[in-house]
Amino acid sequence: MSTIKIPQKRFLERQEKFHRLIETKGLNNFIVLSPKSIYYLTGFSMIPTERPFMLIFSNGTINFFVPELEKQHVVEEVPDATFVESYFEYPDLVHPMTHFAGFMKKTIKISGKLGSEGAGARGIWGYQGSLFKDALKIPVSVHGDLIIDMRIIKDSDEIACIYESAKWGNLAHKLLQQYTAVGANEIDVSFKASHEASKKMRETLGSEYSPVGYGSRPCRAGYRGQIGPYSAIPHAMTRNAVFEKGDTLVTGASANVAGYLSELERTMFMGEPSAKQKGYFAIMMKAQQAAFDTFGPDIPLSKVDHATRAVFKEAGVMNMVQHHTGHAIGLEGHERPFLDRGLNDKMKPGMVFTVEPGIYDRTIGGFRHSDTVVITDDGMDMITDSYPRDLDSLIIYD
Amino acid sequence: MSTIKIPQKRFLERQEKFHRLIETKGLNNFIVLSPKSIYYLTGFSMIPTERPFMLIFSNGTINFFVPELEKQHVVEEVPDATFVESYFEYPDLVHPMTHFAGFMKKTIKISGKLGSEGAGARGIWGYQGSLFKDALKIPVSVHGDLIIDMRIIKDSDEIACIYESAKWGNLAHKLLQQYTAVGANEIDVSFKASHEASKKMRETLGSEYSPVGYGSRPCRAGYRGQIGPYSAIPHAMTRNAVFEKGDTLVTGASANVAGYLSELERTMFMGEPSAKQKGYFAIMMKAQQAAFDTFGPDIPLSKVDHATRAVFKEAGVMNMVQHHTGHAIGLEGHERPFLDRGLNDKMKPGMVFTVEPGIYDRTIGGFRHSDTVVITDDGMDMITDSYPRDLDSLIIYD
Repeated sequence: MSTIKIPQKRFLERQEKFHRLIETKGLNNFIVLSPKSIYYLTGFSMIPTERPFMLIFSNGTINFFVPELEKQHVVEEVPDATFVESYFEYPDLVHPMTHFAGFMKKTIKISGKLGSEGAGARGIWGYQGSLFKDALKIPVSVHGDLIIDMRIIKDSDEIACIYESAKWGNLAHKLLQQYTAVGANEIDVSFKASHEASKKMRETLGSEYSPVGYGSRPCRAGYRGQIGPYSAIPHAMTRNAVFEKGDTLVTGASANVAGYLSELERTMFMGEPSAKQKGYFAIMMKAQQAAFDTFGPDIPLSKVDHATRAVFKEAGVMNMVQHHTGHAIGLEGHERPFLDRGLNDKMKPGMVFTVEPGIYDRTIGGFRHSDTVVITDDGMDMITDSYPRDLDSLIIYD
Repeated sequence: MSTIKIPQKRFLERQEKFHRLIETKGLNNFIVLSPKSIYYLTGFSMIPTERPFMLIFSNGTINFFVPELEKQHVVEEVPDATFVESYFEYPDLVHPMTHFAGFMKKTIKISGKLGSEGAGARGIWGYQGSLFKDALKIPVSVHGDLIIDMRIIKDSDEIACIYESAKWGNLAHKLLQQYTAVGANEIDVSFKASHEASKKMRETLGSEYSPVGYGSRPCRAGYRGQIGPYSAIPHAMTRNAVFEKGDTLVTGASANVAGYLSELERTMFMGEPSAKQKGYFAIMMKAQQAAFDTFGPDIPLSKVDHATRAVFKEAGVMNMVQHHTGHAIGLEGHERPFLDRGLNDKMKPGMVFTVEPGIYDRTIGGFRHSDTVVITDDGMDMITDSYPRDLDSLIIYD
């Protein structure tokens, strides 16, 4: 089994499955819009722009409606497509949606019911255009969730890619820890670790490997501003900060394998932590362990979140909690479902989650590890278990 | 004038302007959703997630409705906000939209008409939720374009940031050209040039500088797969490719200054180009020059596109053209309006465009430079003019 590519047969399986799925919804045709959905179903990856781009499932076939600058690209990479129609440009003299209506009527010869991921083409980068129902003059039922929900349970190839991702996220994080020092700058350290790990990853995996997705790099590791008291802002942004003695740090590392991601985050300290830092760290570790102990098939998602909350409540730090325990992960950094007290759906083998209960004190910092786990037939496996989680391993001495 | 930050007074000016703008639309309240719009109006930058995040203009005030993990972040960075309401999590026991409806009624005490950038909270990363009209039980008029259109004409601070961006894009590209060699790998070369230029940029601009936006780095330069015959795929993706003698290359470089971008692309050659490569290059250069000669205030956008098409037609290569001449640029890599034969709107001073007519031969490669220009009171200025455009400067000899 390749651990760096999703085999072509998986894409064909997914297409088959999706054809059957829309049939059960009484739909004969379906317009797929999201770049992640299109990649998931066909393996085709693109730069999303203002130019409408549609994948059309129609009575057992797949077809594309794309801007001219993507036509050759699609024809070469998705040889199984029945029709690949292109329009010259957006906005152009004739709006692409007018062209699309003609294509659907004359070429696809659309008959039966039409569903779509959205009401119209994706409106990014300045795009404006009519809704499908108005352009095509037929009813369109919008089902934004079908493909997102197909992605919840990962197959063995997807899971293999996430394990492979974790290996290289692990290396990137090791380098990040190694280069982090008093007086160093977060942007430099993040870049250096990401660059070096990416080079090693590329050299090791060989020419068959390539990161998938616009702007993606093989590995990344960094801080994005979570340094010192700013680590208490869970979604802090890069501040061009310099590391100082006493800082609490929260990190992040991942790698892109066939577009799939893992997540590794660690709480680290610049020098010997204070009693307070140690105390918070211990509470966070206990909460994360409570989460690990809860995972398994048929366990409600909420149970994990209740387990971490019970630890935080017992420790008297519920006022320092700002988010739930974790989220699913795969082609996107966050995916549904969530490890959240509001969700009682049950875990199934093949679901992949981050486990990242955290507490935040604005005067001292944030305390959060994140590990990636997969639900197995008899429990769970920690995908990111190579990286140490204990306090002593995460202190950076000068 | 700072060339690395948008001054606070600009954000306040934009808020004032937006309050007046919604008034002219008969709206008393408006929900802003897009992270770029929120940054444009307030200077607040975030990680967009599945958690709903709203900026609410209401009768002269600005207010936020945010997840708990963003509350402190917003309170500190947008001190002028009247109310910053937070909900604990998505999905949680009570859906954030229910909480939002309560906030709008009880705290904002919404009265008069409500507009919004979209029909509901942004649906990314697995989010599901009701539309505003259903949650709030009042009519909502959707105006997705108001803020996008405000951004079309850049003020002097925005333009200064784009000039600053071009300086560092220029450096990143110089390093990219320097490191590109037969046998080198595109990912390594791109990473090395981006890393080194980012370090120089950060050191030069000092601690006041930071790139703005999730995942952004100071500088980037690279190829994303546009190497050899693949450069004829205008939106090729990174392929982990190795440079070979004879390759036609298409590059890209930029830098992030207060979130603003410039665009610099060059067609380069691995070794002495063939007669055919030289011929295509010359046609592309002539088309780009025809575009430059056309820019100026009150000139229709379409005129630039017609000028490049005239050159391509005369040269008999219209069948090799796959896109229009360019697009606006600023906080996003592509913005409206477009240099497209379908748009007759007139240029105004302060508009910033990329100029990138291209031709593509799948057996040889792509031929496209991209330069960034700003429309001035009496013509235009080329923002990326430091980087050579001539053939001799763009040949990489071993």
